[in-house]
Formats: sequence, C-alpha cells, structure tokens
Amino acid sequence: MQNANINFSASPITNKKYALPTKLNDKQNLDLFIEENAQKKIVVVQGLGFVGAVMSIVCANSFKDEYAVIGVDLPNKENFWKIKSLNDGIFPLSVEDKKIDLFFENSIKKGNFYATYDPYAYSLADTIIVDINLDVQKNVKDDNLLESFDLDLTSFKSAISSIGENCKEDVLVLVETTVPPGTCSKVVAPILKTKLNDRGLNDSRVKIGHSYERVMPGPDYIDSIQNFYRVFSGVDKKSIIATEKFLKTIINTDQYPLTMLNGTNATEMAKVLENSYRSMNIAFIVEWSRFAEESGVNLYEVVEAIKMRPTHSNMMFPGIGVGGYCLTKDPLMASWSRKNIFRSEPLAQSEVSVKINDQMPKFAFEFFTSRYKESLDDKKVLFLGVSYRGNVGDTRSTPVSLIYDLFLSNGANIYLNDPLVPFWEEKNIKVETSIDSSLSKKIDVIVISTGHTLYKSKRFIENLMKKPELVIFDTIGMLSKNQIKLIETKHKIFVLGRGDLK
Amino acid sequence: MQNANINFSASPITNKKYALPTKLNDKQNLDLFIEENAQKKIVVVQGLGFVGAVMSIVCANSFKDEYAVIGVDLPNKENFWKIKSLNDGIFPLSVEDKKIDLFFENSIKKGNFYATYDPYAYSLADTIIVDINLDVQKNVKDDNLLESFDLDLTSFKSAISSIGENCKEDVLVLVETTVPPGTCSKVVAPILKTKLNDRGLNDSRVKIGHSYERVMPGPDYIDSIQNFYRVFSGVDKKSIIATEKFLKTIINTDQYPLTMLNGTNATEMAKVLENSYRSMNIAFIVEWSRFAEESGVNLYEVVEAIKMRPTHSNMMFPGIGVGGYCLTKDPLMASWSRKNIFRSEPLAQSEVSVKINDQMPKFAFEFFTSRYKESLDDKKVLFLGVSYRGNVGDTRSTPVSLIYDLFLSNGANIYLNDPLVPFWEEKNIKVETSIDSSLSKKIDVIVISTGHTLYKSKRFIENLMKKPELVIFDTIGMLSKNQIKLIETKHKIFVLGRGDLK
Repeated sequence: MQNANINFSASPITNKKYALPTKLNDKQNLDLFIEENAQKKIVVVQGLGFVGAVMSIVCANSFKDEYAVIGVDLPNKENFWKIKSLNDGIFPLSVEDKKIDLFFENSIKKGNFYATYDPYAYSLADTIIVDINLDVQKNVKDDNLLESFDLDLTSFKSAISSIGENCKEDVLVLVETTVPPGTCSKVVAPILKTKLNDRGLNDSRVKIGHSYERVMPGPDYIDSIQNFYRVFSGVDKKSIIATEKFLKTIINTDQYPLTMLNGTNATEMAKVLENSYRSMNIAFIVEWSRFAEESGVNLYEVVEAIKMRPTHSNMMFPGIGVGGYCLTKDPLMASWSRKNIFRSEPLAQSEVSVKINDQMPKFAFEFFTSRYKESLDDKKVLFLGVSYRGNVGDTRSTPVSLIYDLFLSNGANIYLNDPLVPFWEEKNIKVETSIDSSLSKKIDVIVISTGHTLYKSKRFIENLMKKPELVIFDTIGMLSKNQIKLIETKHKIFVLGRGDLK
Repeated sequence: MQNANINFSASPITNKKYALPTKLNDKQNLDLFIEENAQKKIVVVQGLGFVGAVMSIVCANSFKDEYAVIGVDLPNKENFWKIKSLNDGIFPLSVEDKKIDLFFENSIKKGNFYATYDPYAYSLADTIIVDINLDVQKNVKDDNLLESFDLDLTSFKSAISSIGENCKEDVLVLVETTVPPGTCSKVVAPILKTKLNDRGLNDSRVKIGHSYERVMPGPDYIDSIQNFYRVFSGVDKKSIIATEKFLKTIINTDQYPLTMLNGTNATEMAKVLENSYRSMNIAFIVEWSRFAEESGVNLYEVVEAIKMRPTHSNMMFPGIGVGGYCLTKDPLMASWSRKNIFRSEPLAQSEVSVKINDQMPKFAFEFFTSRYKESLDDKKVLFLGVSYRGNVGDTRSTPVSLIYDLFLSNGANIYLNDPLVPFWEEKNIKVETSIDSSLSKKIDVIVISTGHTLYKSKRFIENLMKKPELVIFDTIGMLSKNQIKLIETKHKIFVLGRGDLK
C-alpha cells in the first residue's frame, strides 16, 4: 500500500512520478502563454479527465483556430500528473482514437495549449468550460446491493467558487458536467453572482450555459464531441446566445444541428433522462434473461425478432452488467435532484434500474454456478476482458469487478486478459495483454466478459479449439451461432440468457 | 339494466337482435358449404373478435385463393350476433380500413366464407386458427390501483378441448392468441393428444404452431396482418414446417420475411416481451412527466431532443395512459407464466409497469386539479375522444374511463365527443360524434383525451378560438407549439408533462 503522506502524483500511463508543487503560482507561465497567443480568445477547461482533456484539444483545434486553451486541474496526487503530462507532450489517456494524437500534436505545434493548476487562469478566460466530475456516493451491501446513496456538492461548489473569485464579469461559463437538474440556475448562478458581487463587479453580465457532452471513449472519441448532436441552453437569453455561438465554433453543427431547450433545467434533465432511459432498458431485460434461462428459450433470438420493429429497436440483449461513469450514477443523480432540489418524490423506477444493474454480475455468477455444478475451488479461470466496454480500455465501474470478486471468493485461481488494460487500477492488479500468452496456460473455465474485437477473431476461436476440453461462459452473447456450434463439439458452453443450450 | 335471462344476442353495430339458437346443430349448412367449396382446403378460425373476424377474411382472400374459411364462435349473448351478422353480410366491427370492406365483399361473392357455432366445423378443417381471447383478471382498489391479478385458463382449455374432440388427427392447429409462455407445449399439446387418444386416433400426427399476430385496429387493419413481420414456431419439426407453409399463403413474406424461433415457448415469450417492453417504456416516462411539471420543464421538447439518437428512438412522450386489449394485460400474463408455469419469481418490473400505467389517468387528473384550483362542481367539461387511440374507434380498457370517472365524482357535468365511437359500450353512454355540435354548447373545460386527426384540424382550432374563454387540458400533447401560442392568447391551457406553461 502506498504512503498516505505522499508528495508526488504518478501517471498510470507512463508510471512517471511528478513532485507536487510547493508554491502554487503559475502566473509567469500563464502570462507568457497569453502573450504568445495574443491574437486568440482564451478558453479555459476546468477538469482534465475523460471529457476535459479531450475537450481541451478539440477547442485548441476549432474550425477557425481562434482559441488558445488553458486546461486547469488540481495540484493533488490524483490530478497533478495530468497537468505535467500534457505540458510534457504526453496525452493523459490511453486511447484508441488516432484523431486524438493528431489533434494533440497540432496543438503542441501551434503552441495554443497549456495546462496549469493556478486558478489565475480563470481571470484570463473569455470562456470557461466546466468538465469536472460530480460523483454519487453509493452505500452498498453484500454483492453490490444498493442500499442508499447521496450526492455531495461540496467540491463542485468549490470549483465554481474558484471561477467566481477570478473570472471576468462577462465571461461565459459553459457547464458540461452531468449535474442534478436545477444545478445551473440554483447552484452555479447564485455562487458566481455572489462572488462577482463580493469583488465589487457587475453581477448581471456573466453568462451561464449548459450543454452536456455525449463523449464516448473509444475509437471515435473526438467524433463523439465534434461530430455529434448537442443539446444546449442557458440561464437567460444572453447566455443561450453566447453558448450557441461558442458551440458552433467547435462542433460540426452543419451536419449535427444543435437543439436549443428553453432553460438549463431542461438540458440538465435531458442528460440524466437520456442515461436513465438506457439504464432502464438494460435493467428491463435482466429478469427476462432469467425467465429465458428457466424456460429453455434463446433470448437473443427472441430479442432480435422483436427489434425488427422500429418501435422496439432500442431493446437490449442480455449481458453481464453496466459499467462506465455515467449509466451507473446518472439515474440516481436525477432522483437526488427531484428529492433534494425540487423537494418531491424520488424517481423510483430510475433508482430501481441502477439497483438491478448493479446486481447483474451477481446474477451472471449465479447462472454460471447453477450450470457448472462443480466446486470452483482451485479451478483455473481466465477472464477475457476487464474493461466495461468492447474496444475501450476503461475500467471505471466495470461489471467485471463484481463477478471477479465472486469467482475469487469461491476459491478460483483467476487469470486476467485485456489487450487494452495492462493494469487494472481499481483492483491494483496487472493484466495480461497478450491473448496467446493467456491461452497458453492450463485453464478450466473461460469467462468472456468484454466484447473486444480481438476475442471475436477467427484465429482466437481456432486457438480455443486446440485447448483441452474446458468450460466457456459467454456473459455478453459475444459468440456467433456458428462459433457456438463449433465450440460445442469440444467444449462445454454456457451463454447468459440462453436456456436452449443444455 | 338488462334482463339476465336474455335469450338474444344484439349487434352493437346495427342494434339488430338475434334470437339465440335452441337446437345446436349446423351440420346441414356446413356440409353444403363444403360441397360448394369442394376444391378448397378448409381453414377454421376459432373466435370472431378483433383478430379472428379479420383473420377469417384474410384467409378467404389468400394469394392463391385455395381456402374456404369457416369462422366459429359461441352461440351466446356476447358472440352469437357476430356469426349471424357475418352470414348476413355485415362485418362485425366498425372499421376505418377500406380493405376490410373489399376483402369481405370478395369472400361473399366467392362464397368461400361461412360462420357457425357448431364445433362440427373443426372436423372439416385442414387448419384451425385459434383467435379466442384470453383475459387477465385484475383486482383493483380505488382509482384503478392494481392489487393482484390472476389468469383463468378454463375457457381457453375448453376451446382447445372442443377442437380435440372433433378435429382430424393430422390437422394444423395454429394458435395466435396471446398466451402465457409455455401454453402450447404444456397445455394445448397435452389436451389435443389426450382427446385424439380418447377418440382412438393416432396422437402423433397433430401439428401445433404458434405465431402471434400484431394486429393494429385502424386504417391499416388488414395490412397489420398481411403486410407485416411475423414470428412463428411449432411444438415439433413437422409443426414448424406446416406453420411456415401455411403463413406463406396468407402473409406477404417476400417483403416481410418470417422469423422462425426454436420453439413455442420462445414465440409465446416474444409476444408478451414485445408488449411488456412497450408497457415499460410508457411507464418509464410517467415519473419524468411529474418531474418536468415540478421543475418548469417542457418534457416534450426534452424527449424530442433525446429521441434524435437512434439508441433512444423508442422513448415515449407524456400521456394520459395506456389502453387497448394487449398492453394492459400482456406483461401480467408473462409474470403469471413465470410464476405458475415455470414456478419461479414474478416479473417484478413488468408488473410494476402495468400498475403505473393503470394509474396514469389519475395522475393526469391530479395535475389538472393542481393547476385548475377552482371547484369542478357543476363545471361543464367536454372530453374530446373516448377511444384509447387516435383514429380508432376502440374503447377497450381506454384510459379515458378513469379520468372521466374522476371528473364525474368531483361534480363535473360531462359531455363526450368521439367521431368514431357513437356509443361507449363499457359505460353504456351515447357519445356525440359531431364536433360542431359538441363545441356549440357552453363549456368551462375541454379535455383533449384522444388524438383523432379531426381534433388537429385548422377548422377545429378556429372554432375553438370563437368560444368564450375556457380552460383546455391537453393530456396527450396533441396541440402543436403554434396552436398553443394561438390558444394562449384567449384560453388557459394545461399540457401534461409541460411545466413551462404557467
């Protein structure tokens, strides 16, 4: 375990350690950067995580090249390495999108991007984009059963305060963070106005917009920002106008027209509704998966037949569970808002959907043991994939975590494979990235847990067929009908949601 | 109230009364019909309701004209009029689809359709299509709150027995009725085999298929059978082959290819899953409607913005509730099957969705009273539409029923308008079909409750604007943005799911 009095911040990408700054002043560098970009408007991006880092370079590569961009994050153990890494020319995410390399190199060449921890940056900005995280705190019992949850706005409020203490009085603050509906009008606006007032400035000129991102880590990372539909609004008319004008400079709005809603409550609601819908659709199919397993039905085949109808095209297939940063918390955030900001009932269905989805890996494990019947004690189990999504190296809230724990606590010896995740941060474990190496070991059970394209390849299936008889558990319906037919000739196979395979 | 010892059956279409038959034998007519159609294969359709009546004439107009069709229903008060009406040349449904008239006239001309009550018909059949109703019995508390439910298979089993007691040993019995998953293999097959055995016949030649209909009453009634995708299966291989062969003769499978599933459990599950999905999607948006109303958000605008994403295109808009025969019961039927046929857990989410949807008209009423504030005592309230669906004259399980009751019990004087429903059977009330006549009355409140095209016409809005100031409650988001802008200049308007209109 690491030392609590740690005074450095380490990059999980390069493993390089950066000493935390002792003197929190970066004014000289910032002034120099501004001088070098004297003709440019200044965009500051607050938060350099999965959204902010990419948003920064999208802004630094705006269509008319009118921006110099400053990325801001906190000088602490978790975040300082991102600042240093960016200024060292190393992008702080391990990504599969070639456009990111291109955009990042371009911005280095042009010299219109700089990262800092100094809130002085906000004083220079014409536009400030808020891309910080806002988490939901879940209290769970055994096997990830959600008992209660809360949302703590403290650090979000302090980030907004930091802007208000430094910004120009007519700045545009564009919130992209997923927030509880009501936040821009009832939290952000009052803080900014109070801070401007405290500084003796006019509090009626600040513009506050909200436009949620639909960022999808993976091979189309940049396109999920630049070439995708956006919904936006602002707390008043001038904010709406300023937000629209700004978005048009970085998003391909000719092909993906913007949708304006009539207030920030509406755009904030749109984001959490969008994700609650998806969460509910996933949760919906869970009990049908069990029903299909019990009644000898192949649920994949049934869902495919139904999805043929356009009115039913969003129906989901069975699966191991839900991961990532958004779907696992946004429905709860919506419910929190309704209770705590609008003093009404919870959103019961949204809460239930998260509760069900959180338990999905447990249901998958139970299905496995009901079929496998043998003891797992000392069995060698290979997991294919720890990321929460195919072709993405992202383990945030991955459902593989819980099913891994369950195999482990039942005595299995576990091998992990993931071509995109060399190190599983949340579990602090190394992961094998070579599939050949993983398959060369003696294995009793293979759990297919992430739909990486590599696992679907012909070569992989051929190698699988060379192994001595084993059990394969497909938790995501990855294998095709023909692959299953082939595998069945040698191995035993269980597929979640398929009651027709004996 | 009507006499319980009634000995006639009355047509709600023509009001004609038919004396119930005293001697239950129609052999002579049936034999004559067979003789006249000596070259044809015989299809018997069991049940002459919303599906069976139309299915009968679709079969009588098969692509190669190879069938003579006998429709069978029971000689009781509820159904006997359908038999007589059909044989009198009057179609037993009030329909908006011109194709129905055409198909029915054709079959009369050709003389290849006959209706009867005599189970002797089953003995003549090459194919028997089961289109009888199977209902769920709901136990509800005040305001339609679902407390429990049950499903009674007695009459379904007796209908299948009636087939088994008469049919040829190699008949194809094609079940189209929505049944609990497991019914064909665990109920229909054992009954037919036992009955064949009892008659000293070979019990291994009977073929049992299942292919659920997706019939949609309305202007495309026939097309919803003939030009639409179908899922099918059978209890064994010969049943699957026979079912496919038959369906190809009546459905345009070149354009709408059939989907074969690997057993009747799967097709039965597909139907109830399909409707449970829709029910859940409707229920999902209910609490968001309340949330939008509380937070000043126009939920229509938000949902529109989100539906732009193909992954979210099935999201529903706010509404008054769910009606019709399928969505209000199928999710419960699924859950009943899982509990009673497969001895497992209930489908909790499916049950919840029905419970929520059943209460939607109550929520709509509560929203109204929270805005209206005045007493409804002696207020004149005009309902536009009693049908459960726009452009359809069908009041089965219409959500208008509950909101009507709530206005009534709060003292309102109610006028009903529906161009397609001259008489509201379930409530035993006459309904005004002329909108001009309805609008000529003194009115305090208009409730827009069904989306008939007529109510969307320019002329209707113009007439509305000539009325003295009143309150309009749009429960289905029927009015366009521009219509609302216009109406707001004179009348007060409330729209369900819109918190932005004050």
